[in-house]
Amino acid sequence: MSLIVQKFGGTSVADAERIARCAGRAVRAKESGKQVVVVVSARGHRTDELIDLAKSVCDNPPPREMSMLLATGEQESIALMAMAIHQLGHEAVSQTGGQIGLVTESVFTKAKIKSIDASRVRKELDKGRIVIVAGFQGVTETGEITTLGRGASDTTAVALASVLGAEVCEIYTDVDGVYTADPRVVPKARKIRQISYTEMLEMASLGAGVMHNRSIMFGMKYKVPIHVRSSFTDTPGTMITEEQAMMENIVVTGATVAKHLARFILLGVPHRPGMAAKVFEALTRKNIIVDDIVQSAFQPGNAQMTFTVSKDDRNATQVALDELNAEIGFEKIIVDESIAKVSVVGVGMRSHSGVAERMFRALSSAGINIEMITTSEIKISTLIAEAEADKALRVVHEAFELDKEPANGH
Amino acid sequence: MSLIVQKFGGTSVADAERIARCAGRAVRAKESGKQVVVVVSARGHRTDELIDLAKSVCDNPPPREMSMLLATGEQESIALMAMAIHQLGHEAVSQTGGQIGLVTESVFTKAKIKSIDASRVRKELDKGRIVIVAGFQGVTETGEITTLGRGASDTTAVALASVLGAEVCEIYTDVDGVYTADPRVVPKARKIRQISYTEMLEMASLGAGVMHNRSIMFGMKYKVPIHVRSSFTDTPGTMITEEQAMMENIVVTGATVAKHLARFILLGVPHRPGMAAKVFEALTRKNIIVDDIVQSAFQPGNAQMTFTVSKDDRNATQVALDELNAEIGFEKIIVDESIAKVSVVGVGMRSHSGVAERMFRALSSAGINIEMITTSEIKISTLIAEAEADKALRVVHEAFELDKEPANGH
Repeated sequence: MSLIVQKFGGTSVADAERIARCAGRAVRAKESGKQVVVVVSARGHRTDELIDLAKSVCDNPPPREMSMLLATGEQESIALMAMAIHQLGHEAVSQTGGQIGLVTESVFTKAKIKSIDASRVRKELDKGRIVIVAGFQGVTETGEITTLGRGASDTTAVALASVLGAEVCEIYTDVDGVYTADPRVVPKARKIRQISYTEMLEMASLGAGVMHNRSIMFGMKYKVPIHVRSSFTDTPGTMITEEQAMMENIVVTGATVAKHLARFILLGVPHRPGMAAKVFEALTRKNIIVDDIVQSAFQPGNAQMTFTVSKDDRNATQVALDELNAEIGFEKIIVDESIAKVSVVGVGMRSHSGVAERMFRALSSAGINIEMITTSEIKISTLIAEAEADKALRVVHEAFELDKEPANGH
Repeated sequence: MSLIVQKFGGTSVADAERIARCAGRAVRAKESGKQVVVVVSARGHRTDELIDLAKSVCDNPPPREMSMLLATGEQESIALMAMAIHQLGHEAVSQTGGQIGLVTESVFTKAKIKSIDASRVRKELDKGRIVIVAGFQGVTETGEITTLGRGASDTTAVALASVLGAEVCEIYTDVDGVYTADPRVVPKARKIRQISYTEMLEMASLGAGVMHNRSIMFGMKYKVPIHVRSSFTDTPGTMITEEQAMMENIVVTGATVAKHLARFILLGVPHRPGMAAKVFEALTRKNIIVDDIVQSAFQPGNAQMTFTVSKDDRNATQVALDELNAEIGFEKIIVDESIAKVSVVGVGMRSHSGVAERMFRALSSAGINIEMITTSEIKISTLIAEAEADKALRVVHEAFELDKEPANGH
């Protein structure tokens, strides 16, 4: 019997009416003869409410207790979803992360999945039940409750789809797919019908906030087809799959903008082996995720090192660097929070030259100054002033004619 | 090292300020050299909110999912309490019912405790931590989340105090102790300094809503001294202990009124062996708790059976009786929801005659009609019209001069 995983995000389960609509979708899939696993996030702004509650009692809540608190958001959702399916006359059974044996590392609020006990879910499916699983949470080997980091319900869904061998993992969200650029910024942006994991990974990392990038990595690693679609309509969304031959014909698939970044520039880093390692070890210890790293323009004897982090991690990064400074002795630490990153992504880029030139020319024609450039095989990113970010995205989208449907239906 | 269990009810942890006050109490006990275990309920009206949420998605939520949902209320509280203690510079660790190995029967929303793994709590206490335990919840042997029924956080606290050998179990609540009668109804009611388990058990069963009666039974069985006191003041409350010799001198300790009752009268019950068993088996199967049972005034050949249940169970009781009626064939089922029960309680009653007569005379002088009488060794209950309940309580309180402090300081 074929199996499908459906994941509903916070906005999709925000109130009773929406929960009922998602329940209806799960029931329709079940009635079409499939086994159905549903993964849900916390309702609407529940996670934010819980974070506010935590802040009201403690300036610096211990991560263990934060996970204990936040995990209630998804537990609430799974119970309500199971009830809503029951209301439609079908059998459903809710399962916490711990109950399906989703074991994570012992890091509390940004834990990574180590294993899932698929037999627990299969046993319930074999009884003819729809299984409702709490996203975003797991347990350590000693039974401590952990959370996977914000937005990680996607990761739970794709990981489950992988261990259960699902035919597809449907990610229901409040947008109807992945666009060539953020439609709120670029009115001419077009929905992409199919995209490769690697492209989607770059798009997500670069600010296309549709899916959590760890979930895409999971999908890529275990070859789980992911369908990103709207929970409000029946229109097909965007399929994320392995790279197809025809995809190579499209040079650039999409453009993204990432704001909410902080850039750190370390001046006068001693030019000795192991310096970079020391800096990024210090950040890793505090679970800070570093975005881009550029080391360049060194004067004889010492180097300049630049990297970006999320604004959320700005203070933690500053603390880590100050601690390190006592040991290493930088000349100066500069922080810049008025920056944004505009990028273009496409697997076709590999076999086409001139993409970088075309992008830089478009920005320059619009009078936008480029402060930093980083590239990978399938993306080019530019750091620019935050105030010009939206304009830059529109200019780049226009330059690559992303509003036009590709001939091969990509 | 001596150990204390403190239990904070929903109103005591309703907001950040109150949580901080409870945290301060736990920290003071810790700083006085004690090991401290804190048991908390869901915040304020959280449980009611969750029940409303459930009703908004399902007319008849499955009990398993109801427990899954309601258990989040206490989980939220334990995390917040641990954070509030952390804020005061002390170490605390929250624990769900499952994490302390609180195993219950497989009944979901009214489960009974089978065992607690005290070693889990002791391990944390031995690290110098304050341990915060979620009241009201447990797990079955197969790891399903269960809840103990409303108000049962008291039971969790007393059960923990018992297995840990605590010197006292403090129950913090929004009243400052147990009164000779409900002070909202009887302005002259007086706080009782010390009361026996059996008296308290009768008082609780008869409507003195300070503590959950299962928790008192636990206390009695395992001889755990229970201190019922206010979370808003430092005034000592009421100690519930084993019966003391001097207690016998007081004939009546308190008076209670229970409303929210429904009386079922079964007419024409076939007078054959096993009829009563059949009736109450049918109710037990639906987890309906029967209050008083009176079988009397039978005509030749068939009997009349009367019993009371909580109004909450009125519909479930009706359904159970209707099902049974097909098999047994009662003549008639009468339901009366306009009744109340007024009772007097006291261990001294055993050695004093005339208590019943004094009570009935007081009611009769006030023109109140008695519809049913039930007695035990230490209590006398009368069923009267609900509209006269408060008046009846005042009259009885006056008749036994309960406002006067007993000479021996009881």
